[in-house]
Amino acid sequence: MNSLFKRLSKHKSFTFLVTVSFLTALSSQAFGQEPTNTIPLSNDFFSAINTIWMMIAALLVFFMNAGFAMLEAGICRTENATNILAKNLIVFCVAATAFFIFGFRFMFGDSSNPVFGQFGILVDSLFPSEVNLNPFPQGFENLRFFWQDRSFAAIFFFQLSFAGTTATIVSGAVAERIKFWGFILFSFVLAGFIYPLVGYWVWGDHGWLASVLNFHDFAGSTVIHCVGGTAALVGAWILRPRHGKFGYDSATESFPYGEEVGTFEPCNPGFTTLGCLILWVGWFGFNGGSTRFLEYVPHVLITTVFASTSGGLAILLYSPLVTGYKVKLSSIINGILGGLVSITASSAYVDILGACIIGAVGGVLVLLGESLFQSNLLRIDDPVSAVPVHLFCGIWGTVAVGIFSQSISREFNSLHTIAQQTFYQFLGCSCVILTTLLLSLLAWMAIGLFLYYLNPSVSYHYSEGDIGVLTTVRRGLRVTLEDEKAGSDATIIM
Amino acid sequence: MNSLFKRLSKHKSFTFLVTVSFLTALSSQAFGQEPTNTIPLSNDFFSAINTIWMMIAALLVFFMNAGFAMLEAGICRTENATNILAKNLIVFCVAATAFFIFGFRFMFGDSSNPVFGQFGILVDSLFPSEVNLNPFPQGFENLRFFWQDRSFAAIFFFQLSFAGTTATIVSGAVAERIKFWGFILFSFVLAGFIYPLVGYWVWGDHGWLASVLNFHDFAGSTVIHCVGGTAALVGAWILRPRHGKFGYDSATESFPYGEEVGTFEPCNPGFTTLGCLILWVGWFGFNGGSTRFLEYVPHVLITTVFASTSGGLAILLYSPLVTGYKVKLSSIINGILGGLVSITASSAYVDILGACIIGAVGGVLVLLGESLFQSNLLRIDDPVSAVPVHLFCGIWGTVAVGIFSQSISREFNSLHTIAQQTFYQFLGCSCVILTTLLLSLLAWMAIGLFLYYLNPSVSYHYSEGDIGVLTTVRRGLRVTLEDEKAGSDATIIM
Amino acid sequence: MNSLFKRLSKHKSFTFLVTVSFLTALSSQAFGQEPTNTIPLSNDFFSAINTIWMMIAALLVFFMNAGFAMLEAGICRTENATNILAKNLIVFCVAATAFFIFGFRFMFGDSSNPVFGQFGILVDSLFPSEVNLNPFPQGFENLRFFWQDRSFAAIFFFQLSFAGTTATIVSGAVAERIKFWGFILFSFVLAGFIYPLVGYWVWGDHGWLASVLNFHDFAGSTVIHCVGGTAALVGAWILRPRHGKFGYDSATESFPYGEEVGTFEPCNPGFTTLGCLILWVGWFGFNGGSTRFLEYVPHVLITTVFASTSGGLAILLYSPLVTGYKVKLSSIINGILGGLVSITASSAYVDILGACIIGAVGGVLVLLGESLFQSNLLRIDDPVSAVPVHLFCGIWGTVAVGIFSQSISREFNSLHTIAQQTFYQFLGCSCVILTTLLLSLLAWMAIGLFLYYLNPSVSYHYSEGDIGVLTTVRRGLRVTLEDEKAGSDATIIM
Repeated sequence: MNSLFKRLSKHKSFTFLVTVSFLTALSSQAFGQEPTNTIPLSNDFFSAINTIWMMIAALLVFFMNAGFAMLEAGICRTENATNILAKNLIVFCVAATAFFIFGFRFMFGDSSNPVFGQFGILVDSLFPSEVNLNPFPQGFENLRFFWQDRSFAAIFFFQLSFAGTTATIVSGAVAERIKFWGFILFSFVLAGFIYPLVGYWVWGDHGWLASVLNFHDFAGSTVIHCVGGTAALVGAWILRPRHGKFGYDSATESFPYGEEVGTFEPCNPGFTTLGCLILWVGWFGFNGGSTRFLEYVPHVLITTVFASTSGGLAILLYSPLVTGYKVKLSSIINGILGGLVSITASSAYVDILGACIIGAVGGVLVLLGESLFQSNLLRIDDPVSAVPVHLFCGIWGTVAVGIFSQSISREFNSLHTIAQQTFYQFLGCSCVILTTLLLSLLAWMAIGLFLYYLNPSVSYHYSEGDIGVLTTVRRGLRVTLEDEKAGSDATIIM
Repeated sequence: MNSLFKRLSKHKSFTFLVTVSFLTALSSQAFGQEPTNTIPLSNDFFSAINTIWMMIAALLVFFMNAGFAMLEAGICRTENATNILAKNLIVFCVAATAFFIFGFRFMFGDSSNPVFGQFGILVDSLFPSEVNLNPFPQGFENLRFFWQDRSFAAIFFFQLSFAGTTATIVSGAVAERIKFWGFILFSFVLAGFIYPLVGYWVWGDHGWLASVLNFHDFAGSTVIHCVGGTAALVGAWILRPRHGKFGYDSATESFPYGEEVGTFEPCNPGFTTLGCLILWVGWFGFNGGSTRFLEYVPHVLITTVFASTSGGLAILLYSPLVTGYKVKLSSIINGILGGLVSITASSAYVDILGACIIGAVGGVLVLLGESLFQSNLLRIDDPVSAVPVHLFCGIWGTVAVGIFSQSISREFNSLHTIAQQTFYQFLGCSCVILTTLLLSLLAWMAIGLFLYYLNPSVSYHYSEGDIGVLTTVRRGLRVTLEDEKAGSDATIIM
Repeated sequence: MNSLFKRLSKHKSFTFLVTVSFLTALSSQAFGQEPTNTIPLSNDFFSAINTIWMMIAALLVFFMNAGFAMLEAGICRTENATNILAKNLIVFCVAATAFFIFGFRFMFGDSSNPVFGQFGILVDSLFPSEVNLNPFPQGFENLRFFWQDRSFAAIFFFQLSFAGTTATIVSGAVAERIKFWGFILFSFVLAGFIYPLVGYWVWGDHGWLASVLNFHDFAGSTVIHCVGGTAALVGAWILRPRHGKFGYDSATESFPYGEEVGTFEPCNPGFTTLGCLILWVGWFGFNGGSTRFLEYVPHVLITTVFASTSGGLAILLYSPLVTGYKVKLSSIINGILGGLVSITASSAYVDILGACIIGAVGGVLVLLGESLFQSNLLRIDDPVSAVPVHLFCGIWGTVAVGIFSQSISREFNSLHTIAQQTFYQFLGCSCVILTTLLLSLLAWMAIGLFLYYLNPSVSYHYSEGDIGVLTTVRRGLRVTLEDEKAGSDATIIM
C-alpha cells in the first residue's frame, strides 16, 4: 500500500481522485486489515479449464447488463428510455465499486460467526506477483476450499458480476419516476451491504442458513433474485405509481381517477425481446458457472433451458385456456424469465422433468403476480414486472429445491425429509426477504430524507401542512411532476 | 420414473401440467423404452475442455435466436414487429420440447436400419447420478463413439440448439401473414419429426446417405439449412404473398394489380444489421462446435470467416459491376449470410482459397435467388430472403464439398473422385430436399385444415363456391385481411 | 497452389472471382514466397485450453463489430443510420481481406530489420493437413516462440479480429459525410499496410520500439487505438464538419454562420447503450486474450473492469462537480470506453488501484477532448468522439504503463526507472502517431484524388477558380450536399 501512495502522491494533478483513494485508504485502515500477507498457493493447484470456464460464465453474467438495459428500455415509454439506459449503464460501475470496497470481504471472508464476514477491501490481494500469480489473501480459506483450483481473482470477478446483477434488478421496478442519484445511492448500499449480509448467510463461511438449516440455493434464487426483488418492491411501494398509472395523480399524491390515465405502452418490443434473449443466454453463465464440478455444467444448462422453455410454453397455454385472453409478447418474455429465476436455486439438483414443472409453475406465477400487483388492493406500479419475476419466482424456486431435489446429486446434501427440507427452504427464504425488506426500507428512507433535505426547495408538491415521513422520503426520491411528464429529459439525465 | 410420478402426484395443484407429463409418460411407455440401464462411463473418458467448448459453441448457436429475431423484426414492417418477435421467442421453446420428446432419439438413437433411429424421450438419461455423472443411456453407442469424450448431456444440449435453429429459419419466410398457432404447430412437427428423419440419414447411426453415398455435410448446409429453407419455401408458397406484395389482393386471392401496392420497406436497419452480426458470431459456434477435434477449431473459424467476408465482398463488387445498381444494406447482409450458409457443409474440409470461392458464389447466389423469387414467374413472397439464403446456398454449399474438399482432412473420407463425390453430394441433398418438401407440404396442409375446421366462421374471404384444398389450407393458416392490415396487432399476438 | 488452380480452372463460370484469385496469386508469386515448406510441430505442443481461450477472446473481439455498429448508428442521425451500418458491416470484410493478403506477414513475419516484416499471403499455411494440423509456415519462428502452444491458425484468427477493430474505429469520425467507397479503400490501406507497419514496431519480430526502447503496449492502446484514432482524426480533419455543424456550410465550404445549424441529436440512445455494453464485453476478450499466461486472465479482466467503472464514475462526479452541467448518457458511455482504451496498454502490468486511476483519468480526458474539438480553435467534427476516446485515451494509456506498471509482473520487463520508462512510452507512442498521421494523410489524399478524377462531373461545389489539393481531396471523398441532406439515402448506400 505504501508504495502505491508514494506513486499517487507524485501525481498531484489527480486531485479529483483524492476522494476515491481516500475512501479506499480509509476503509482498509479503519478496520486494521492490511491483507498483504498472502498464503502462497502452488501453481499446481491452478486449473486452467476451471478458471477459464468461470471467466466465461462471469462474462455471460456481465452481458446480462445489456439484457436488463434492453428489456427495461423497451418496456418503458420512449421519453424515459435515455434515463433508464443511463441507470442500467452506471449501476454496474456503482455496484462493482461498492462490492469491491465493502461487499466482498463482508460476504465471503472467513468468519466464525454465523451472521457476517469481514470488513475491508482487496487492493493488495489482487496485485500480480511473480512468485504467486493467484494469491489468496489471508482470510479466505473457506473460499479457497470451496472453489479449490480457481484463482482468487477469478472468483472475485465472478462474484462481482453477480453483485452487479442484484443491483440491476431494482432499476426496472422504480423506472420512470426515481431520481438518478437516489437510485445510484441505493445501488451502492444494496451491493455493498444488504446483499453481502444476507448472501453470507447462504454462501458465506459459517452463514447460519446453510450451516444450521441446511438451506440450499444453488445459483441464487434467494440470494440474488429475492434480494433484488424485495429491494425493488420496497422502492416501488415507497415511490407510488407513475403519474396516471392506476389513476394516480402525482400532484395530489392520491388516486382521484380510479382508472389509468394516459398510455403506458412499451416503446420498443424489439429491445424487450432482445433483452430477454440476452438474459436467457446470460443465465447459462449464471447457473452454469455456479457449479464446482465441470461435469455438471451440461446438466445444469439442460435443466436451465427446459425450465425456461416450460415457463414460456406454460404462458402460451395458460393465457388462452385459463384466462381466455390472447397471449402477449411481454407475457411470453416474463414466462421465460420466470422459468429462469425459478430454476436458479436448483438447476444442479433436479432432473429435466422437475425442471419443466418448476419452470412452468414459475411462468404462471409471474402472470398471477402481475394481476395481484395491478389489482385495486395493491396498485403497486412495477413497469417491468421485476417483483413478480424475481421475488415471486425466487421464492418458488427456493422452495422447489426441497420438493424436487435428487438426493444423489453431489452438489446437494440431503439431510432432511422432503417435507422438512421444503420447510427449511421456505423458512430461510423468508428470513432473507424479511431482512432485506427491513434494511431496504431503512436505506430508501435514509436516502430519501437525505435528498429531500439537500434540496427541499425543488418540490413539485402542492399538498400542504404536516406530511408523514414516508411522504417526505418519496418527495426526496421522486422526480418532479414536470420532469416525469417530460420523461426525465431526453438526453440529460439526473 | 416411478419416484418422479409419486412426487408429482403429491402436488395435485399442478393440474395444468398434466397434459405435459401425460404426454411425456405416454411417449416413453408406448414404445416400451425405459432407458434406465445406463452403461457406466468412467470419468477418465470425460474431457473437460472438449465438453466446455461444446457448451460454448452451443451457447453461440443458442444466441443465434437473438440474431434471427433481430434480423426478421428489422426487415418486417413496424406493425408486424411484435408478432414476428413473439414467434422467434417461442419457437425455441416449442422446438426444444419437440426435439426432446420425439426428435433426439429419432435422429441419434442407435439403429440398424438406414432410415430412422429410435422413438422415445430422454428423461432418465439426463438425471444426475452420484456414480456416473454423464451417463449414456442404452441405445446411443454410435453417439458415444463419435463424440468420444463428451458427456451425453453436452451432446444433447448442442443438438438441441441446432434443432432450434432449423425451426427458426421458417419464421422469416412466412412472416406478416401466418397465424401464430399455425407457425407453432408446424415448428413442433418440423423439429420433432421432419428434421430428425432426414437428419438421421446424414448424421445418424446407420443413415443411408452417409453410409451408402459417403455423403458429407460437416455442420449442416443440408441437414439444417436446406431443411429449414425447404420448409420455409413450402410455407411461403402455400400462404401466397402479403397483401399488396406483387399486387396480390388478399381479399380476392389473386393478382389484380400487376405491381406492388403499398410499401414493404424494412422498419429498422439497425435491428437487421445487429441480427446479421449476432448470427455471424453465432456461426462460429455452429461450425466451430461441429468438429470432433479441437485442433481443427481454429481452421474451421478461419474458413468460416473468409467465406462470409467473401460473400459480402462479392455482393459489394457484383451489384455495381454486373447489375449496375447501387449496393443495398440488405444485400450485404444476405451476402454475408449466404457465404456462411455455403461454408457450413465444408468448413473443416477446405482451405482458405476454397472457402473464399464458396462464400463468394454463395453471396451472389442469394441475389440471383431473390431476383428469381420476385420475378413474375414465381412471385413467392419471402420477406427476409430465407429461401435464397438457406436453401439455395445450402444446396451450393453441399455440392461444393465435392468440388473443394481436401482429401487429407481427417474429417473427410475421400472414397470417390471429385466428380463422383460432387454428384453424390447433389444426389443426397436432393433426396433430403424432396423428402422435406413432401413432408412439409403434408404438415402445412394438415395444420391448415385443422385450423380451418377448428374455426371456419372466422373468415375474411369473399370468394364463393367450392374452393380447392390448398385454398382451404391457406385460409386456415393465414390471418384475416383485417389483421394483416392492422399488423397482426401491436401488442397482442395470435 | 497448383492443384488449387487446376480445380479453379475447371470452373470457368467463376469469372467474377478472377480478380480475387489473380490478386492472391500475384501477391504470393511476386515476392517469391511459396510458404509450402512448413516446419513440423508436434501435437504435444498444442495446448487445447490455451487455443480455445484464444478463440473465445477472438470471438469477443469480433463481436465488438456489433458494438461499434450499434454505438455509431445510435449516435448518428436517423437518415444516416443505414449508411453507417453498411460501413460497419463491410469494413470487417475489407480489413480481413487486406490483413490476410498483405498485413499479417508484414506485421508478424520473422524479420531481422527493425522496421517491417515480410510480404505475402498465407493460403497454404492455413491448409489442413493430416500429418500436421497446425503448421507454422516458415518465417514465423518469433510468433511460435511468443505464443508457444497455440496453433498458427488460432493466432491468425485472433490477430485478424484485432486488425478489423482498428479499421472500425475510423468509421465513427468520418460518419454522415464520407463516400462509401472512399471509406472502403481507406480501410483496405489501413488494415493492409499502415496498421501492420507500426504494429510490427511494437509486436513484431525485431520491431525497433520494443527492442530498442523497451516500449510496452500490452493489448494495443498505441497499436490499435492510437493508430485508429489518428487515422480517424486525419479523415475528420480533411472532410471538414457535417453541413450545419459548427455553422459549416458545405456549399461554400466555409463557416458563415458561426453557430450550429440544424440538430445533431443522437437518433437512438438504446442502440448507443447496447453498443457500449457489447464493446465492454468484447474488451474482456481484447485484453484477456492478449496475455500468454492463462493465470493472468482473471487479473487482466479485473483491471479492465475497474478501469472502465472508474471511467464511468469519474464522469458521473466530474460533470456536476467541475463543469456544473448535468451528466449526459453519451458522456457516461464515453467515460466507460475511455477507461477501457486507457487500460488496454497496461491491464496485465498494474494493480487495481492503478487501474482505477488510469481509467478515471481516461474518462475525464474524453470530456476534455470533446470540448477541445468543439472549440472554435479546432472545429473538428467527430460525431462519435472517436478521436478523444481512442487517440487521447490511447496516448494516456500508453504513458500510464510507465507510471503504474509493477516490475514484478511476468509480462513486463522493467529495464528503466519510472521516469525513463514513462518517457520511452511517450516517445514510442509519438513515433507511431506521427507515422500514422503522415501515412493516413497520404492515403486519404491518394484515395480522394482517385475518386475525384474518376468522376469529377458529379460535384456539388459552387466555389470556382483554382482549388487547393486538399479541397480536391475533400471533394473526392465527400458525398454531395444533396446526398448529405437526404442522409446518404435511406436504403441505398454508396
